[in-house]
Amino acid sequence: MRNTVGWQVEGASTTLRRAPLERRDLRPDDLAVRVDYCGVCHTDLHAVGARAGEGGRPLVPGHEFTGVVTETGPAVTRFTVGDPVAVGNIVDSCGECAMCRAGQENFCHAFPTLTYDGTDRHDGSTTLGGYSREYVVRDRFAHPLPAGLDPAAAAPLLCAGITVWEPLRALGVRPGTRVAVAGLGGLGHLAVKIAVALGADTSVVSRSPDKADDARRLGAGGLVVSTDPEQMADARDRFDVVIDTISSPHDLGPYLRLVAMDGTLSHLGHLGPVTVETTDLLVGRKKLSSAGSGGRPATAAMLDFCGEHGITADIELLPSARVNEALDRLRRNDVRYRFVLDMSDLD
Amino acid sequence: MRNTVGWQVEGASTTLRRAPLERRDLRPDDLAVRVDYCGVCHTDLHAVGARAGEGGRPLVPGHEFTGVVTETGPAVTRFTVGDPVAVGNIVDSCGECAMCRAGQENFCHAFPTLTYDGTDRHDGSTTLGGYSREYVVRDRFAHPLPAGLDPAAAAPLLCAGITVWEPLRALGVRPGTRVAVAGLGGLGHLAVKIAVALGADTSVVSRSPDKADDARRLGAGGLVVSTDPEQMADARDRFDVVIDTISSPHDLGPYLRLVAMDGTLSHLGHLGPVTVETTDLLVGRKKLSSAGSGGRPATAAMLDFCGEHGITADIELLPSARVNEALDRLRRNDVRYRFVLDMSDLD
Repeated sequence: MRNTVGWQVEGASTTLRRAPLERRDLRPDDLAVRVDYCGVCHTDLHAVGARAGEGGRPLVPGHEFTGVVTETGPAVTRFTVGDPVAVGNIVDSCGECAMCRAGQENFCHAFPTLTYDGTDRHDGSTTLGGYSREYVVRDRFAHPLPAGLDPAAAAPLLCAGITVWEPLRALGVRPGTRVAVAGLGGLGHLAVKIAVALGADTSVVSRSPDKADDARRLGAGGLVVSTDPEQMADARDRFDVVIDTISSPHDLGPYLRLVAMDGTLSHLGHLGPVTVETTDLLVGRKKLSSAGSGGRPATAAMLDFCGEHGITADIELLPSARVNEALDRLRRNDVRYRFVLDMSDLD
Repeated sequence: MRNTVGWQVEGASTTLRRAPLERRDLRPDDLAVRVDYCGVCHTDLHAVGARAGEGGRPLVPGHEFTGVVTETGPAVTRFTVGDPVAVGNIVDSCGECAMCRAGQENFCHAFPTLTYDGTDRHDGSTTLGGYSREYVVRDRFAHPLPAGLDPAAAAPLLCAGITVWEPLRALGVRPGTRVAVAGLGGLGHLAVKIAVALGADTSVVSRSPDKADDARRLGAGGLVVSTDPEQMADARDRFDVVIDTISSPHDLGPYLRLVAMDGTLSHLGHLGPVTVETTDLLVGRKKLSSAGSGGRPATAAMLDFCGEHGITADIELLPSARVNEALDRLRRNDVRYRFVLDMSDLD
């Protein structure tokens, strides 16, 4: 086994503590990656909270990270030592089902191996995430990091970025498409940047009128204040695509009413049941969809696109030792717009 | 006023009784129509039940009928006396909102005038439906009945037909599209006929294995028995479009799981809240939509298409005096596949 170090929760605590970790010895198609930067995702917050409730086995979060290849297995051909790479929220899949064959490993019928708290398909061990100084990953699930992107600000592309890219692309957003992004957080601000770069006529919907300047700086044409009934009524039926990135449970009705005839509300990053009024779908032949992460080809396409357009996240970079502060502030939505942990303090 | 006769419920009774009715004198753009055939829709059943519960004002159901023009107002140019016509579930709209201008009068922002139990936009009276010998309708909301279609079997096209036509067209069904129709009733059997005529590779999903012969006779390639877990598992992710015509409340999960990557479940003819598991949408980037009726241009296109392809409903024709028997049997799903009332017994 290989020895490294990382940040983990254990037992009933929600505080991450520095701990020695083991990584597997390299299989023929594995890379060892020195993790330089790891984004802090809402999923990490949920996972830490849920694990503490169970008082269960150790958990190392982190599923959007960038770093450098430090060693390669003998069958690896796509990477060499020194290559900058990026890894997202899945690190393996069956490779044989219809979804895997279609390049949608995220929907693998045998369930993809998650980057943390997943079960390795070969040795049955529990995966430990990117809040650590080294990660060992199957080469197919590492992506070359495009030249010119800041590796710290690029880390969130691997989860937040692909999560917004998937619906924007699947829903055919192109120049002139009218897009509204509800919620201007980690997902939302990347949705705005990508939609604008795709040529969409993009607006932000937010509770906070004070985000108007930020919305405009990100390239949005305007802000609709969701708590202002008059503004919401004016925006009725106005958008071909509404990307709802609001992470807390909320009524989808007001957002469906913003969707134009034959348009779609895509609801991101929330699991569990959702309830909609049939008439909110029926009137205007609207559609409801949901998205989260993507497959290997889409992730590669998203990274290429972001490389071409110079798109990265707006981040607040913290030494990894401040991970608990980052999680606390994320819980209070006190971040514009994504925390990224600098792992170099683990050396 | 004009005097006619029809079938109505009154007070707390759910029994329809023959009663004299009044129709308005013709406005300049009105037609008087001798109603020959009127289909019996699930909505009629709900309306009769709801009205009896309220013990309210008289109700005359019926919103899919065919007949012949007997008189025209002076401004009418599209029809002359003797023309065969068809009328559906809306008979007026504001004509000025974005939806009306787009030919989606069914989504009129000021609410369309329903064919029965609606409120007339000019005199404020309550509309009385097609279970009667005469109807007076604004010319814009009457449609020429294509030559060659049996007027009795064509009546259900005006509600059931347009309700299935709308999602099939909006979802781009074309030769080769894989379509499943869940529920083989009044809506479902027309969905199969129209999907087959559009060139779709069409299957039926039904609780009843004994509908396999009917499904094949209607042009479907096969039947998936919804109560057989093995058949439902085999059909997972197989259909680009699933048209769910099941009228009783049910779990949408099993039907969403039949939808292929990027496909859509369109859920018809049910009002009220629906709940779906986010993961059932997320895995496979599936969409949920809902449909019911259509606007004037779509209704005209549907009638043209059905005229070209000789599509009408499979009906059981009853003298209108047997309307209560028809509603009772419809309540028990004992009809293949639509009751139509012959109004000539009202003379």
